[in-house]
Amino acid sequence: MSASGHARPIWLDCDPGHDDAIAILLAVHCPNVRLLGISTCHGNAPPSCTHANAVRLLHAYHAPVDVHAHRGATKPLIRPVRSDSEIHGEDGLGGVEGLPTLDEPAVKERVNLDGRRSAVEGIAKAIKNSYLNGAKVSIATTGPMTNLALFITLHPELCEAIEEIVFMGGGVGIGNRSAVAEYNILCDPEAAQIVLDCPVKKTMIPLNVTHMCIFNSEIQRRLANGSSAEGNPVTPLRHMLSTLILFFASTYKSTFRFEDGPPLHDPLTIAYLSRPDIFKTTRYRVDVELTGTYTTGETVVDVWNYLDLVEDDNWGVNGKNCLVAQSVDVAAFFDTFLACVEKCDKVSPLNQQ
Amino acid sequence: MSASGHARPIWLDCDPGHDDAIAILLAVHCPNVRLLGISTCHGNAPPSCTHANAVRLLHAYHAPVDVHAHRGATKPLIRPVRSDSEIHGEDGLGGVEGLPTLDEPAVKERVNLDGRRSAVEGIAKAIKNSYLNGAKVSIATTGPMTNLALFITLHPELCEAIEEIVFMGGGVGIGNRSAVAEYNILCDPEAAQIVLDCPVKKTMIPLNVTHMCIFNSEIQRRLANGSSAEGNPVTPLRHMLSTLILFFASTYKSTFRFEDGPPLHDPLTIAYLSRPDIFKTTRYRVDVELTGTYTTGETVVDVWNYLDLVEDDNWGVNGKNCLVAQSVDVAAFFDTFLACVEKCDKVSPLNQQ
Amino acid sequence: MSASGHARPIWLDCDPGHDDAIAILLAVHCPNVRLLGISTCHGNAPPSCTHANAVRLLHAYHAPVDVHAHRGATKPLIRPVRSDSEIHGEDGLGGVEGLPTLDEPAVKERVNLDGRRSAVEGIAKAIKNSYLNGAKVSIATTGPMTNLALFITLHPELCEAIEEIVFMGGGVGIGNRSAVAEYNILCDPEAAQIVLDCPVKKTMIPLNVTHMCIFNSEIQRRLANGSSAEGNPVTPLRHMLSTLILFFASTYKSTFRFEDGPPLHDPLTIAYLSRPDIFKTTRYRVDVELTGTYTTGETVVDVWNYLDLVEDDNWGVNGKNCLVAQSVDVAAFFDTFLACVEKCDKVSPLNQQ
Amino acid sequence: MSASGHARPIWLDCDPGHDDAIAILLAVHCPNVRLLGISTCHGNAPPSCTHANAVRLLHAYHAPVDVHAHRGATKPLIRPVRSDSEIHGEDGLGGVEGLPTLDEPAVKERVNLDGRRSAVEGIAKAIKNSYLNGAKVSIATTGPMTNLALFITLHPELCEAIEEIVFMGGGVGIGNRSAVAEYNILCDPEAAQIVLDCPVKKTMIPLNVTHMCIFNSEIQRRLANGSSAEGNPVTPLRHMLSTLILFFASTYKSTFRFEDGPPLHDPLTIAYLSRPDIFKTTRYRVDVELTGTYTTGETVVDVWNYLDLVEDDNWGVNGKNCLVAQSVDVAAFFDTFLACVEKCDKVSPLNQQ
Repeated sequence: MSASGHARPIWLDCDPGHDDAIAILLAVHCPNVRLLGISTCHGNAPPSCTHANAVRLLHAYHAPVDVHAHRGATKPLIRPVRSDSEIHGEDGLGGVEGLPTLDEPAVKERVNLDGRRSAVEGIAKAIKNSYLNGAKVSIATTGPMTNLALFITLHPELCEAIEEIVFMGGGVGIGNRSAVAEYNILCDPEAAQIVLDCPVKKTMIPLNVTHMCIFNSEIQRRLANGSSAEGNPVTPLRHMLSTLILFFASTYKSTFRFEDGPPLHDPLTIAYLSRPDIFKTTRYRVDVELTGTYTTGETVVDVWNYLDLVEDDNWGVNGKNCLVAQSVDVAAFFDTFLACVEKCDKVSPLNQQ
Repeated sequence: MSASGHARPIWLDCDPGHDDAIAILLAVHCPNVRLLGISTCHGNAPPSCTHANAVRLLHAYHAPVDVHAHRGATKPLIRPVRSDSEIHGEDGLGGVEGLPTLDEPAVKERVNLDGRRSAVEGIAKAIKNSYLNGAKVSIATTGPMTNLALFITLHPELCEAIEEIVFMGGGVGIGNRSAVAEYNILCDPEAAQIVLDCPVKKTMIPLNVTHMCIFNSEIQRRLANGSSAEGNPVTPLRHMLSTLILFFASTYKSTFRFEDGPPLHDPLTIAYLSRPDIFKTTRYRVDVELTGTYTTGETVVDVWNYLDLVEDDNWGVNGKNCLVAQSVDVAAFFDTFLACVEKCDKVSPLNQQ
Repeated sequence: MSASGHARPIWLDCDPGHDDAIAILLAVHCPNVRLLGISTCHGNAPPSCTHANAVRLLHAYHAPVDVHAHRGATKPLIRPVRSDSEIHGEDGLGGVEGLPTLDEPAVKERVNLDGRRSAVEGIAKAIKNSYLNGAKVSIATTGPMTNLALFITLHPELCEAIEEIVFMGGGVGIGNRSAVAEYNILCDPEAAQIVLDCPVKKTMIPLNVTHMCIFNSEIQRRLANGSSAEGNPVTPLRHMLSTLILFFASTYKSTFRFEDGPPLHDPLTIAYLSRPDIFKTTRYRVDVELTGTYTTGETVVDVWNYLDLVEDDNWGVNGKNCLVAQSVDVAAFFDTFLACVEKCDKVSPLNQQ
Repeated sequence: MSASGHARPIWLDCDPGHDDAIAILLAVHCPNVRLLGISTCHGNAPPSCTHANAVRLLHAYHAPVDVHAHRGATKPLIRPVRSDSEIHGEDGLGGVEGLPTLDEPAVKERVNLDGRRSAVEGIAKAIKNSYLNGAKVSIATTGPMTNLALFITLHPELCEAIEEIVFMGGGVGIGNRSAVAEYNILCDPEAAQIVLDCPVKKTMIPLNVTHMCIFNSEIQRRLANGSSAEGNPVTPLRHMLSTLILFFASTYKSTFRFEDGPPLHDPLTIAYLSRPDIFKTTRYRVDVELTGTYTTGETVVDVWNYLDLVEDDNWGVNGKNCLVAQSVDVAAFFDTFLACVEKCDKVSPLNQQ
């Protein structure tokens, strides 16, 4: 039986993006999870870039050949599209433009590049197939939730085939791309509300938790050195990852004044699916502010339980709809990350060249 | 060459509904238009009812057998679903429950009843096929615009294959199901905004115009008598239509104090596609209020041109995005309606029994 | 007994303004009303201008010497101040800048010009004194309602001493300075809501009614000719009023495309207090939209009675809070206006020079 | 020269309230400040209670006889009035109902009890007099800011006579009486925005800081024992204060799950005026959300400086308008509090009985 025999089937919806790039690494190499596919979205970079980046990263990480990257929404449901070049560079993976390793174009036969937007049907097909085979799929989403909102809207009958949804997004009283709103939610707040209202168990990984996971100089040293004795030559894969994260570190320092290193937001979703035991969560009602003058896109967590709602099995519109991560075992998370790097080191085509 | 050889291919998205029922009649029998298919939506009645009603009416009107009714959205994008039994009865066609004619169940082989929601893909397929054959499709929508919004969101590349969109909905300063909001827009204001923002020529038939088209006792007499001399026996089709509209008249009288007869809102969309010459329109910027305490769902028409926008070819987010009907030749409209009844009289299976 | 012995004591809060200028004329010379004082507000022109205009007009109309113009609010409660020079010129009475008659500076001893803002205390004192003498005061307001809102907020105990409030403002489905908002309400929507919520009988004269009162060429001819035979020399007062209204006509034509003449909005409030019999009204719940993206400042009239509120004696937050004028006898209104001109002709210092 | 010769003249606007009671103690007995007067507001309790409480406390603390408590606003500018009996008991000072000490009615001749609402004119008179004597007044406000908003609106010319405004209210990402709104701001968000927009230096003491100042068992012990050796008899004043705070502790425990003691919010404003050196502050743009579905009343602090505003001398609508307290020397604060108790012990009429 394959190592992934008992692994949870997962789908990753993302907008790579530097931290998405790490999320994809974990999605491919984390224990306990088996990646079925990826869908990409507008968000950190223009949608054509996020898709291309996903393709390149699947290749670099030596993902199974049947794991495709599906093009998804090119704009939010209602609001204008935006991207965040100040943080992620023009193409979403600022810093590695010069690295030929990642620019490998020979990935075409591995993943669909026909230009068709197939995110919603890709998700639907993967979930339906898995369900017919007896396994519910868990969905991780690390960008604006437009794709997921459309999937839920068009296929409400498949909600029961979703094991759970975990999303990086929102904050409890803090924001990053407005005073109080986090970027993923801010980009498409209506989509986020649709997901929050759907009858599926959900977990939110807010900024409050991701800001604990600082990729500091110690982690940087461990990434550069690998698991073997110091002084080992850095592999091309590790070099690429280091370069990515150092770019991210520099933009987080200049924009958000993070002095010790950037937070690794997105991979926490995969870490949660792989190792839920390292997270502490509390169940709340979470809604997205859609009408505020200053607060649109804020995730409003009913921390005082003023809405007086129940913890029903539906997880939908009438009750406490979301687990909100309160903390994570930061050391365990970075151990997981570095273990994935180590696994990937052995198979990455970057290292074979 | 068939009479419909030069007719415009059209799609009807609706939520029958009494006035939708008349819109379907016109869509099947009006000159200059050729109905490709129907999609149904939540709205006047629960979505299962609106779909069943569309099927029954296509049968009653003897629509071509390849005209299917596709199930669509069962709820608005974000807001809770509603229906309007006070106006349309419990199943959307109040008044004809006892008429076996309309309850004909032998329609199953003619239209898909497999329960699958196929509105978005049905629209996409019809439009793509027609476009490949050299003809753009015009879309009429007479209910909440959830289906259309989803279609545009998932298939932005097909916008260029749409000739135009005409929707019954909204008002210029007047509403019906709130102080200032019309029911179709009120049901799914976000969907309406998505449609208003899409790069397709659009025409809005507001309450201001539909309230001119009162089905009064004179029209009722003409419907009952047919085109031949008075005293002719009323056909089952005419009886069914009369029964429908009299129910509608009674609810409009009790709810909205329309004393002279109900307004025939929805068929004006088809009339517009069939005979645009009988309408007067003005191009404006139209947006839907999404954040008002009292005004959510109001169509805000920039009548004073304060936004100072241009009449571009895009018809989308940056310019005057919509023609707003100002008036209609009421007599010509009812002539069109009655001509459709007369055509239908000759082919309706109701009359063959 | 003096002619004003049985007249209703009234207070006028205004922002002259061309139509306010006519309102002041009526307030001084209409039968059945006795003007106690005037307060001025930001609005049509900067607040220093509206106050100076009120002073000059009181002088021109030969108001009793104890009728003062009190300076009021210089900005809305929360929002930025605006003025409307496109309609009213830079100083609020565009067109008569060159007429020395109105620029008479010898008005200082008649009305307070000490610069102090005394609107709220002026209103309070007048109402309290009148109440102690056994007469409730009626308040007409023809500008943004900041002064009135502040008065009500600071002196809720005096609400019972107010006979009624009549305001020119708002519209039922129509606006002028936004797609759906009327200027007076738009300037200070929060103030308007405070007034609408106060426990005093209120009447709203909306745009729908004021737009019926067009100062057309026939009325212009009657104003110019006076009541005597045609050919009479035009008095300086009539010349001044004509000049004012012709300026107003020209801005209404260029800005709002009123071809036949401008609407005389504000004097309808005084006409209502003088001759309520020439108005038709219906009682509704009226609220001001305060949170809309496109609709802030819209007066939302519950025309369908969806709020299902009662017609209580309180006229405040819990019931139908406002009479909304539906129509006016236009001819009777202009007769009233012209009768005031005729009365004023006999006493105006403009005519004595 | 009197001890208060160099003290800053201050005004306290409050809604006692348990922590307001401590604020009044500090206002009367803190070094460096000299209390000119108090105004009371709706808020923690009905307005008649907050006024009576202020009177009783001024008496209990032996405030100078010319320090009056002025009745202020009985409701917010626009929104319905509320009070918070769950936290403060029915009359705002839950816990001491049975203590005759505080119920001393012989305070009538000391402070005005004539029922007149004189807050706005009281503030205006005190500020004008002080200004004419060469000293600007600092205002501390510890309740909803209705009185202050009205004062600023009616007397904008006196803004230059205000040294600074310090208010307890709001939070940076946290709330208490909604998910994200603090009670004082939530009660009258429009009033808070008016104050935030006024051209006066302002300091906000948010929940983030007040929640650091926990009245824990150690402080409770020090309060009960006084400054002398343990075992001293507790004075009636200390008994009253202890009883007040223990009630507050119990409601904070049951409602907000504060296990170690309640936060002493309001006295921090006076501590700030007396000893600004023990606070750390940062200047930001702060606005109040007025249109949110879930977030109305939230103080939105532009922590990322996205608005890119300047630190101008105006402190008003166009720049960074507010210092936001980041931290306080908690020990120094409680030392200040206990020093005030000790001073008061020597003069309180409660201790003379």
